[in-house]
Amino acid sequence: MKARIHVMLKNGVLDPQGEAVRHALGGLGFDGVEGVRQGKVIELDLADGTPEDSVAEMCEKLLANTVIESYSIEFV
Amino acid sequence: MKARIHVMLKNGVLDPQGEAVRHALGGLGFDGVEGVRQGKVIELDLADGTPEDSVAEMCEKLLANTVIESYSIEFV
Repeated sequence: MKARIHVMLKNGVLDPQGEAVRHALGGLGFDGVEGVRQGKVIELDLADGTPEDSVAEMCEKLLANTVIESYSIEFV
Repeated sequence: MKARIHVMLKNGVLDPQGEAVRHALGGLGFDGVEGVRQGKVIELDLADGTPEDSVAEMCEKLLANTVIESYSIEFV
């Protein structure tokens, strides 16, 4: 069983990394880029029978800083 | 126009970050985790009329290290 987790900064939280990427893209001549948001994608290989709600618990406890980040879980 | 780019390490490339996460999850008592791969997700807000193939060029030039990483582009 595989789970794919997207962790992104919440809207309204400043994304300095995204700003740096946008600035660098502009410097390379890509001028159509109006905004950049960067986050994490984490793919978990789970043993069969691993309860799906334990993945949300993993996000809450370790994979996402829920104060400034939101996460979404997709089972593939 | 919005583009979402997934950048992951190529198969076979050691993922120390993923290993660290797997180890930490085990330490928190989540023992069903057999493997962890961590990558980046980058969301680009593009001006209308930005050519789609320029996004692949952005990946090749800046967003992905194509020696060890592979990328996929999704227009949303």
